[in-house]
Amino acid sequence: MSKLVIVGTVAFDEIETPFGKTDKILGGAGTFIGLAASHFNVDAAIVSIVGDDLPQEYLDLLTERNIDISGIEVVKGGKTFYWKGRYHNDMNSRDTLVTDLNTLADFNPVVPENYKDAEIVMLGNLHPAVQLGVLDQMSQKPKLAVLDTMNFWMDSALDDLLKVIARVDVITINDEEARQLSGEYSLVAAARKIHEMGPQYVVIKKGEHGALLFNGDNVFFAPALPLEVVFDPTGAGDTFAGGFAGYLASVQNFSFESMKNAIIQGSNLASFCVEKFGTERMVNLDRDEVRKRLMQFKALTQFEIELN
Amino acid sequence: MSKLVIVGTVAFDEIETPFGKTDKILGGAGTFIGLAASHFNVDAAIVSIVGDDLPQEYLDLLTERNIDISGIEVVKGGKTFYWKGRYHNDMNSRDTLVTDLNTLADFNPVVPENYKDAEIVMLGNLHPAVQLGVLDQMSQKPKLAVLDTMNFWMDSALDDLLKVIARVDVITINDEEARQLSGEYSLVAAARKIHEMGPQYVVIKKGEHGALLFNGDNVFFAPALPLEVVFDPTGAGDTFAGGFAGYLASVQNFSFESMKNAIIQGSNLASFCVEKFGTERMVNLDRDEVRKRLMQFKALTQFEIELN
Repeated sequence: MSKLVIVGTVAFDEIETPFGKTDKILGGAGTFIGLAASHFNVDAAIVSIVGDDLPQEYLDLLTERNIDISGIEVVKGGKTFYWKGRYHNDMNSRDTLVTDLNTLADFNPVVPENYKDAEIVMLGNLHPAVQLGVLDQMSQKPKLAVLDTMNFWMDSALDDLLKVIARVDVITINDEEARQLSGEYSLVAAARKIHEMGPQYVVIKKGEHGALLFNGDNVFFAPALPLEVVFDPTGAGDTFAGGFAGYLASVQNFSFESMKNAIIQGSNLASFCVEKFGTERMVNLDRDEVRKRLMQFKALTQFEIELN
Repeated sequence: MSKLVIVGTVAFDEIETPFGKTDKILGGAGTFIGLAASHFNVDAAIVSIVGDDLPQEYLDLLTERNIDISGIEVVKGGKTFYWKGRYHNDMNSRDTLVTDLNTLADFNPVVPENYKDAEIVMLGNLHPAVQLGVLDQMSQKPKLAVLDTMNFWMDSALDDLLKVIARVDVITINDEEARQLSGEYSLVAAARKIHEMGPQYVVIKKGEHGALLFNGDNVFFAPALPLEVVFDPTGAGDTFAGGFAGYLASVQNFSFESMKNAIIQGSNLASFCVEKFGTERMVNLDRDEVRKRLMQFKALTQFEIELN
């Protein structure tokens, strides 16, 4: 079984949407990535930091899904990263109401000894210096390193970000971020420029409009499943990344064809994530539901056309 | 060979984009629909109105493609509908600088006698009363009636619009228009409400984000081909509709599977339309280019996934 190292936040989220609001619930990129990756046959470990205010049941929820948490540092007397946000009616935009970094402000990730030879590294959205720190700790170059990042780091830590971009095989960002990073409006041109920065594969996430995979002249597009209700988009991008990395770790095949399937698997899992608040849908998701919806994805996109 | 009646403007367009600008050139929904439909084995006729200021070469350009123009009324001393617009940098929004209805203000469409038994009617974006007038002239209910419309008519002529919607099999509108017409944000819910208004098939155009086809619980998604340069989006929606209707007229099969192919054919032709100003790319488009790009569409979306 392949080892997958995930670095990302394990956090408290407090969420308001037009459908309701939550108290402080379990969230964080590392959490969503881990839960999504746990749907595949993979030995995943989360590297993160929390305070001792995080309920033990949240950590148990991860271990019950065979996710190794020995790389999650619990700071005695420390407080866990906390984010509070409110989504607008269209669910595509949100206001951040509170961001308390807490223990995350001093996060020095430590990759557990027995995961330093992991085949796959998934760098969740964090300061690029932290992401570099994880790559530096690996005892050998991973077979595949996947980077998720965002515009915030382009604005505030571009030098470090470019360093980590140069060292990964896959980058996942949204369309606006791809434009910002490349200075190109066309996503085709943007992907080409980002290729030149390092990653062989560029995944451009377009939320409700799906995702594009670029690899040289090869392009693949996966739609988002049209849903009756998007209840809470929190974690959808991380779930996509976790499904993507988890699938690839399980098949250990990094060809373009395999990446296409990884994009579909990520999109499929993300379509569940948004149906309930926070991690609620992801922790109650069984294999039959996942399979059934994969078939919906096939029906949504597959066609037979005569080229006469 | 099936007959296809197209009603829509034949017009002068004057276009500014970040890439340059044109003089008055050939445009109009009827023109783009006709040019796209002419790529299929179909007997198409355009019903429209122009002034005698429209150069004869523009009409010749249509007849050379075997499009019947006997339903295009040429008003002596009249002026042709004229639209001037400027696209913003993102090419997704535009300002209308001039709209001179001219002869279009008094347009009473007359379907040529030998097209009154046409199997397919494509109602291009026009006042819904004009669209109803065309349906009323058909000697028998067409096998398929396709309606294109826009928010302008929802605001200014909703009663007539609802009447024509009730009489067509397919409606093509964009995502914002689907939301406005239905009062539903979710496109799944919007399509369901629009089904209830009449059309069995609801096609939701999302521009660079592709198109969705709804038919009861069946959903199909076709992406737009990611392009290096979108030079001029004018006519892309009409080209999509023309490819859609032209394909269906040629195969005379109106099943969901056939509609899927029609969506792909429409998307494929629209991807060419935006590569040059106005109709320039469409009039210089050969079969091999069309076939080759259809294969790109297949490559863009098709995948093989094991459901284990």
